[in-house]
Amino acid sequence: MRKNFGKKTWFYPLPVLIVGTYDENGKPDAMNAAWGGIYDSNQVVLCLSEGHKTTKNIKIKGAFTVSFADAAHVVEADYVGIVSANDTDNKMEKAGFNTIKSEYVDAPIINELPLALECKLVKVNEDGNIIGEIVNVSADESILNNDGNIDPAKLQAIAFDPVQNTYIKLGEKVGNAFKDGAQLI
Amino acid sequence: MRKNFGKKTWFYPLPVLIVGTYDENGKPDAMNAAWGGIYDSNQVVLCLSEGHKTTKNIKIKGAFTVSFADAAHVVEADYVGIVSANDTDNKMEKAGFNTIKSEYVDAPIINELPLALECKLVKVNEDGNIIGEIVNVSADESILNNDGNIDPAKLQAIAFDPVQNTYIKLGEKVGNAFKDGAQLI
Repeated sequence: MRKNFGKKTWFYPLPVLIVGTYDENGKPDAMNAAWGGIYDSNQVVLCLSEGHKTTKNIKIKGAFTVSFADAAHVVEADYVGIVSANDTDNKMEKAGFNTIKSEYVDAPIINELPLALECKLVKVNEDGNIIGEIVNVSADESILNNDGNIDPAKLQAIAFDPVQNTYIKLGEKVGNAFKDGAQLI
Repeated sequence: MRKNFGKKTWFYPLPVLIVGTYDENGKPDAMNAAWGGIYDSNQVVLCLSEGHKTTKNIKIKGAFTVSFADAAHVVEADYVGIVSANDTDNKMEKAGFNTIKSEYVDAPIINELPLALECKLVKVNEDGNIIGEIVNVSADESILNNDGNIDPAKLQAIAFDPVQNTYIKLGEKVGNAFKDGAQLI
């Protein structure tokens, strides 16, 4: 038996995106967003309300970074989602986030988060969503395996659960893509 | 130290979406897609190539379902991603997927996958992406907790790892959203 819940904005997994931007004075900011994903090859989409400082910053600078919140920074990631730089001057300091400027775009990379997409604003699309081109992916060496590739078991990215309002850690590998299904062919 | 990887379509977590549709004869189909997410309140976005049977079906019927692949159906989920209904007549039978028609939209719900979004096509947007309105969320009772809500620990949704080409299970709860961050205020 199935139960109907009606219209709900539920999705599994939802990401925990920490969007990094500079304001008009070059001051770094970050916010937590769950509504976003891949829009096309090398492109991301973000659904952000107009009122966010981040939305204004993206339009001013034409750039942003997307870091993925990890299990080691749940408190910090949640903090930047519940406090706005519109009314908290020292938001980044209170979050404990330190930044360096991206080499590729006019946006800050958050040192504490080990994986970031460095994005140029392509446009605000017909529905008001932010479309960005991924011009570089940068990863801290701490999450790389011996081959120099990203190891998701080291990254420990988290997901947002929209029903229980919790954060969930990505866990163990359960299969191989483009491979396991071949046994049914 | 950080390592630069250049332009990559990497994202954590990426979902494993099983998109269910009917063709012009009412025959059910399903495909696996990782490029999609929440587009707005009650709306999803899917980035699907034109050539997919699913893309054609969505345009014909104006409807689709999005089920979330779970750890119990990794093989089946992978299979519908590597085989096309364009050249495999009995794709759903080989996948072992059985369907019932949604009560709300002209699209099939896959019985074996316990959580589905039932969506009406809103439009194909300016960039060719599918935008759907979630008109109902239906969940099998097996993934509900005692309060009748979805329990992500029972759902066991999986994520696609675009770097290692593996599937990863969502694991343990690591925090409370809109709450844990308050300790930094």
